[in-house]
Amino acid sequence: MTLNELRGKTVALASSGGLDSCTVTKWLADRGVNVVSLTADIGQPDEVDIDDISKRMLACGAREAVLIDLKTDLAEAGIAMLIGQARYEGGYWNTTGIARYVTTRGLLAEMERRDIDVLAHGATGRGNDQVRFQLVANMLKPSVTVYAPWRDPAFLDIFGGRKEMIDFCNAYNLPITATYEKPYSTDANFLGLTHEAGKLEYLDVAADFIEPGMGVFPAQAPDKPESFSVRIDAGRPVQINGEDTDIATAIQKANEIGGRNGVGIGIHTVENRFVGIKSRGVYESPGLCLLGVCYEFLLQQVLDRRARKFYDSISSSLAEQIYQGYYCDLSTQMMQGALAPVAKLLTGTITVAAYKGTVLFQSSEDVPHSLYSEETASMEDVGDYDHRDSEGFLNVLGVGAKAQHAAGQSAIPEQVIRREV
Amino acid sequence: MTLNELRGKTVALASSGGLDSCTVTKWLADRGVNVVSLTADIGQPDEVDIDDISKRMLACGAREAVLIDLKTDLAEAGIAMLIGQARYEGGYWNTTGIARYVTTRGLLAEMERRDIDVLAHGATGRGNDQVRFQLVANMLKPSVTVYAPWRDPAFLDIFGGRKEMIDFCNAYNLPITATYEKPYSTDANFLGLTHEAGKLEYLDVAADFIEPGMGVFPAQAPDKPESFSVRIDAGRPVQINGEDTDIATAIQKANEIGGRNGVGIGIHTVENRFVGIKSRGVYESPGLCLLGVCYEFLLQQVLDRRARKFYDSISSSLAEQIYQGYYCDLSTQMMQGALAPVAKLLTGTITVAAYKGTVLFQSSEDVPHSLYSEETASMEDVGDYDHRDSEGFLNVLGVGAKAQHAAGQSAIPEQVIRREV
Amino acid sequence: MTLNELRGKTVALASSGGLDSCTVTKWLADRGVNVVSLTADIGQPDEVDIDDISKRMLACGAREAVLIDLKTDLAEAGIAMLIGQARYEGGYWNTTGIARYVTTRGLLAEMERRDIDVLAHGATGRGNDQVRFQLVANMLKPSVTVYAPWRDPAFLDIFGGRKEMIDFCNAYNLPITATYEKPYSTDANFLGLTHEAGKLEYLDVAADFIEPGMGVFPAQAPDKPESFSVRIDAGRPVQINGEDTDIATAIQKANEIGGRNGVGIGIHTVENRFVGIKSRGVYESPGLCLLGVCYEFLLQQVLDRRARKFYDSISSSLAEQIYQGYYCDLSTQMMQGALAPVAKLLTGTITVAAYKGTVLFQSSEDVPHSLYSEETASMEDVGDYDHRDSEGFLNVLGVGAKAQHAAGQSAIPEQVIRREV
Amino acid sequence: MTLNELRGKTVALASSGGLDSCTVTKWLADRGVNVVSLTADIGQPDEVDIDDISKRMLACGAREAVLIDLKTDLAEAGIAMLIGQARYEGGYWNTTGIARYVTTRGLLAEMERRDIDVLAHGATGRGNDQVRFQLVANMLKPSVTVYAPWRDPAFLDIFGGRKEMIDFCNAYNLPITATYEKPYSTDANFLGLTHEAGKLEYLDVAADFIEPGMGVFPAQAPDKPESFSVRIDAGRPVQINGEDTDIATAIQKANEIGGRNGVGIGIHTVENRFVGIKSRGVYESPGLCLLGVCYEFLLQQVLDRRARKFYDSISSSLAEQIYQGYYCDLSTQMMQGALAPVAKLLTGTITVAAYKGTVLFQSSEDVPHSLYSEETASMEDVGDYDHRDSEGFLNVLGVGAKAQHAAGQSAIPEQVIRREV
Repeated sequence: MTLNELRGKTVALASSGGLDSCTVTKWLADRGVNVVSLTADIGQPDEVDIDDISKRMLACGAREAVLIDLKTDLAEAGIAMLIGQARYEGGYWNTTGIARYVTTRGLLAEMERRDIDVLAHGATGRGNDQVRFQLVANMLKPSVTVYAPWRDPAFLDIFGGRKEMIDFCNAYNLPITATYEKPYSTDANFLGLTHEAGKLEYLDVAADFIEPGMGVFPAQAPDKPESFSVRIDAGRPVQINGEDTDIATAIQKANEIGGRNGVGIGIHTVENRFVGIKSRGVYESPGLCLLGVCYEFLLQQVLDRRARKFYDSISSSLAEQIYQGYYCDLSTQMMQGALAPVAKLLTGTITVAAYKGTVLFQSSEDVPHSLYSEETASMEDVGDYDHRDSEGFLNVLGVGAKAQHAAGQSAIPEQVIRREV
Repeated sequence: MTLNELRGKTVALASSGGLDSCTVTKWLADRGVNVVSLTADIGQPDEVDIDDISKRMLACGAREAVLIDLKTDLAEAGIAMLIGQARYEGGYWNTTGIARYVTTRGLLAEMERRDIDVLAHGATGRGNDQVRFQLVANMLKPSVTVYAPWRDPAFLDIFGGRKEMIDFCNAYNLPITATYEKPYSTDANFLGLTHEAGKLEYLDVAADFIEPGMGVFPAQAPDKPESFSVRIDAGRPVQINGEDTDIATAIQKANEIGGRNGVGIGIHTVENRFVGIKSRGVYESPGLCLLGVCYEFLLQQVLDRRARKFYDSISSSLAEQIYQGYYCDLSTQMMQGALAPVAKLLTGTITVAAYKGTVLFQSSEDVPHSLYSEETASMEDVGDYDHRDSEGFLNVLGVGAKAQHAAGQSAIPEQVIRREV
Repeated sequence: MTLNELRGKTVALASSGGLDSCTVTKWLADRGVNVVSLTADIGQPDEVDIDDISKRMLACGAREAVLIDLKTDLAEAGIAMLIGQARYEGGYWNTTGIARYVTTRGLLAEMERRDIDVLAHGATGRGNDQVRFQLVANMLKPSVTVYAPWRDPAFLDIFGGRKEMIDFCNAYNLPITATYEKPYSTDANFLGLTHEAGKLEYLDVAADFIEPGMGVFPAQAPDKPESFSVRIDAGRPVQINGEDTDIATAIQKANEIGGRNGVGIGIHTVENRFVGIKSRGVYESPGLCLLGVCYEFLLQQVLDRRARKFYDSISSSLAEQIYQGYYCDLSTQMMQGALAPVAKLLTGTITVAAYKGTVLFQSSEDVPHSLYSEETASMEDVGDYDHRDSEGFLNVLGVGAKAQHAAGQSAIPEQVIRREV
Repeated sequence: MTLNELRGKTVALASSGGLDSCTVTKWLADRGVNVVSLTADIGQPDEVDIDDISKRMLACGAREAVLIDLKTDLAEAGIAMLIGQARYEGGYWNTTGIARYVTTRGLLAEMERRDIDVLAHGATGRGNDQVRFQLVANMLKPSVTVYAPWRDPAFLDIFGGRKEMIDFCNAYNLPITATYEKPYSTDANFLGLTHEAGKLEYLDVAADFIEPGMGVFPAQAPDKPESFSVRIDAGRPVQINGEDTDIATAIQKANEIGGRNGVGIGIHTVENRFVGIKSRGVYESPGLCLLGVCYEFLLQQVLDRRARKFYDSISSSLAEQIYQGYYCDLSTQMMQGALAPVAKLLTGTITVAAYKGTVLFQSSEDVPHSLYSEETASMEDVGDYDHRDSEGFLNVLGVGAKAQHAAGQSAIPEQVIRREV
């Protein structure tokens, strides 16, 4: 879709209130497009006053500017990530990806109420966010057209990047907060922050110039460990440090405690963007990191070996679904269907200590579906397990093992790597 | 195999020099078995003088006591683990499992030289080590019979556990170092330590009573980050902090630097033993943890999305192979065959900072096979990537996405979990 | 558990009425054990009159002999297999494995009504069935003890195999149908037959001496194709050749039509038993084979690429769960949870032609959740898909592809195999 | 890339000699582009005289027309597919995909000799072939630009599809063989044929109107089974029916015997194209199908359970790599690296009978790396396996199974599917 097809039409702009939003709004409005600014309230920690966004967007030429509260939706999605331990490429909590899905879903609902059928967004043409906006919209409401100025030659001919946008906004006196000097860009919601671009693009540079938005780096954290306890009930956090809580508050409290102890602050990754580009990100998600470790300690007691293996494969696949914008397709539903019986079993109280970026196990209590048994675990000859049975067990395993030798199959494996190298 | 079949025969005992080794040696020797004590020198950090082991075993009744240097073999196996990021159940470096394989392999070679065809070991009947001894022996030399007193009723009738063994050794004045009070047991080699059993079996108890053997807990680490740099060449560490090194020394240096900064000390896991029992372990492996993070930073630059996905599935499978004693079978060879082309590409210098248990990325340099490109990564309209192409890209993806909607397949996924719960 | 612990107790014997059942009943009864014979009616196609089994078992010394109708349960389990395309090791429908689960479950329920807590069975000590009996019982009712004469030295000392059992039964004039000459053994239920052992153990011998029990070999089938049409609704067959039907009848009709046309008769496999032994089986399952192809044709229209990939991995894992007796554990529930959203979408009418063992697609109609679109599929420039978009699509893919070349990663792959060989 | 950039330049056209090739050659030549026609000789079974292609292309305006013999390369690639059992979406041998890779690779080599840096092809904008041409070229020689008229508006404005091309060629009297009536299109090489498009796009129509090019439909095959025997040595066929042969001849002989017995003729699939479109194909690959079954019978004897599981996951991933044009990337090399140790073990003679589309196992001989043992497989109490050991084996497994029950985890699984539906 291009600018020409938009003139005279009403367009919903997914607006963060930042430099892109201001630029696109002004540029579209000046070209005869009715811009309705829709901003998701997803608890952005970097916004002093989220209502200011609407004011700014109106000042940039939007006809209307609406704030949509999606904090509960985002918390729900965050819990789903925790239940699935869905960390991208084995590493970090992809809070931007999941929020993009929640936002698009929320915006589509608002657009339906307002009968708007074009969704514009300021995501660039080589990032992941454009994919998420488009795929979520295509899957949930294909009658909505997605318009991305950053893929429209009419826009690209004027704007090459950040500098041209600031020039443009300054020329029109638009209320931007961006400055020429900002050394990186940040995406924010209450699940986490994503820092990328700018100076971060240089891999020979440490990310210590970043100013954390949800806590402190480990070196700035207190010198004493802080205890953190969560009661999980059927997969949902219901108490933090002994006090009842809803899920959004649980995540917020975990953000505070984790953040001030350096947990989940400044996580560096070079990742595979969906469009096939490597990019570097630095992440903050203290609450998910802290809770994630607690969920893991619970999962370790509940999942037997077979369930663990299947669960682990789902974890990484689910994270990929979120990352790539495929969160509403059939395969995600299949994964969630697989996780549902696990979620039901995730009940217990886990206590850990947060200390300068580390999370140490303290104790586990009241885990009704735990497979752990102190008696059976013991190496001593007590409990249900009869040591003598192992003789038969190993003899049975030995039949196959010996057959491999007889068939000339067994070998010293690490030599395979060396020979190749 | 039982005691009766052993009388008058010569048996090689895999001997750590600990309580089990002393007890079994004396008990066998008194019953007419010729015990040849074979001890693997795998750089056990908990041994003041490893030659003492032989003296102790002779004192317990062994005919001969031999020390076999397997440090290089163990280092090779450790590098293979690093190349595959083979951490068990997604978490820790299973240093005991890999060492058991190296030890069994080394002992079998020594037994061949001495023409001994019975291998005895003191691993209990409900742990993993018995499986590893047996399967490695069965696969590499099935003519060797494995004898495990802890699965023999003749032994079990006398010894129920730790207490009876200490009584027995004391009665005979054997040179044991074990005491009745030891609150947990430790398996050691220079790749890492495994603490388990005793007080650790209680999940409502933190593991802070453990005395680290390879470093300090984060809280005891220095207040300043320490830089650590490794040059990796085709998958093998060749320089540490700029100095040339062999692989064993590289791991040792990483142990020192990681250990004194609390990296990889005190990692808690409740894991699935091969015999189907849950057990709790507390692990130390500072060097592998520190190097592992560096390898990961290199892998992130080298592996594209497809390779990453396959690689990740191999990582967890390979760790399972090691854990379960199947390291010499065909499937491990297949996994190593898959990792060989990756190893060839793993070249570069990674620098990190170790600080109170955390490892922070500092820089990456000289990575010839990196897919990362500063220009392409940039969100700005520079480099090879044309933003306009994304319009076509997304339109193509959109055809399938819209088809899912038309077919009634797309949905809000996290509701699947909630409905079930 | 051994014979001595059973004397004077009441034992439920899982009884097929065959040689093993007769032998075990007589042997136990003579040693003071009260045997209650429980026989699952699972539509065994090889039984002339299933009620005869009870008479035979009473004649062998059983106190009571009960027939339990589990045909509907087995049909349900068969449909679950079809929905998951759960064929073992990629190949055949493991009808014995699923039936063993249904039978054990049904017997446990009957035992609960009768307050019996020992389940005996005649499965041998190196097969899979012993594993299934035991694990299903252990998971669903661990207070029940499983007794297997074939693992009891008291039994093994007398009976080495088939010949000794026939001698024993003949000596007591027991009503067995087995003869010394039977060249193989067969397990039967209305989902399929499993032939193994005897002459089948020789891999240089074709299985053409087998007498099919559910149809004919392809060479004996009619010279004209026969049409077969199934209406599937949300995963369940509801019509066969246009007539309404329940699921059990649907499978029976598919058995008839498939069987007389040589479909799914005489499938040869060398498989991996759970105990690590290779064994050869020859299988018949005409109905599941015929329906399975129809389900597959429907799945092909419904599953997009991502869902397909996940689905395929579940198919083989689920088959493994069934084969190994782990059908009641958490991981199976996870797999079924993943398949549930797929089952909901499986609606449509598929028509095929069965001809001498082959099944040919004829037509597909009324598939509301199909992703197939004649317009979009067309290579011509019609429909929603714009050929020009592919230029952008491929340029985007090309960025990653070219990066692999620049990083020295791309290569001619089949040389890897040749070099190794 | 567009037409305008090509004027005056020399372009290598991947030419099959068909309607697209003729049209594109004439159209480009008339617009000032020097067309060098490059045709891969990949044993196309549908060409009466492959040298005719060059004559036709010259008649259409090509400056030069070259035939490149790639039959051995294709045979090598075919063997690699067999070793990996790489069938797409579990089903058919993707002979078009693998040939496209071989062709592109061969053409790039010829272009290097001739210093041509533009590769044109006639694949359409919504198929898979365009992806394969582009990705293979991008990976093996990124300095080559790929030009596809079917994605160029200049071409698309004139040609909407097949009809316009025939009109155009007729207007210029070009030597095309295509007619307006052809009800479907075919891609051919000696590994197999792919039929699609036209009448095949209607799923309510059987594919019986197709005229097989490599054999006959089962109904037309002889009434007697034909024996087929292959000697495989380290993964490569070295004898067919007892006669020594090279790999290309082995495949050709398998084509003949399989084809005339209806094996691998007319296989219907609705598949997921890489661009996200469902499409229907009808396939012929008698030789690969026949050999594939033989390889499978050999694999069944060689792969233990762990190796099988890993192998199966590679099979489907490798097929996906081939299908999607990613055959030269790192992940394919990893997969081939994993298959190399398997290939080494694939030695043996397999005999089957081909009969009206079915392939029946006859015998297996001389398989040195087989895990199968007649003695161990036997259910009787003979051989290495001691039935009594199973008691211990099952008791050990039972500990975990009972723990699942105690933790409230075990359940009747098929109810999960029913409840959802």
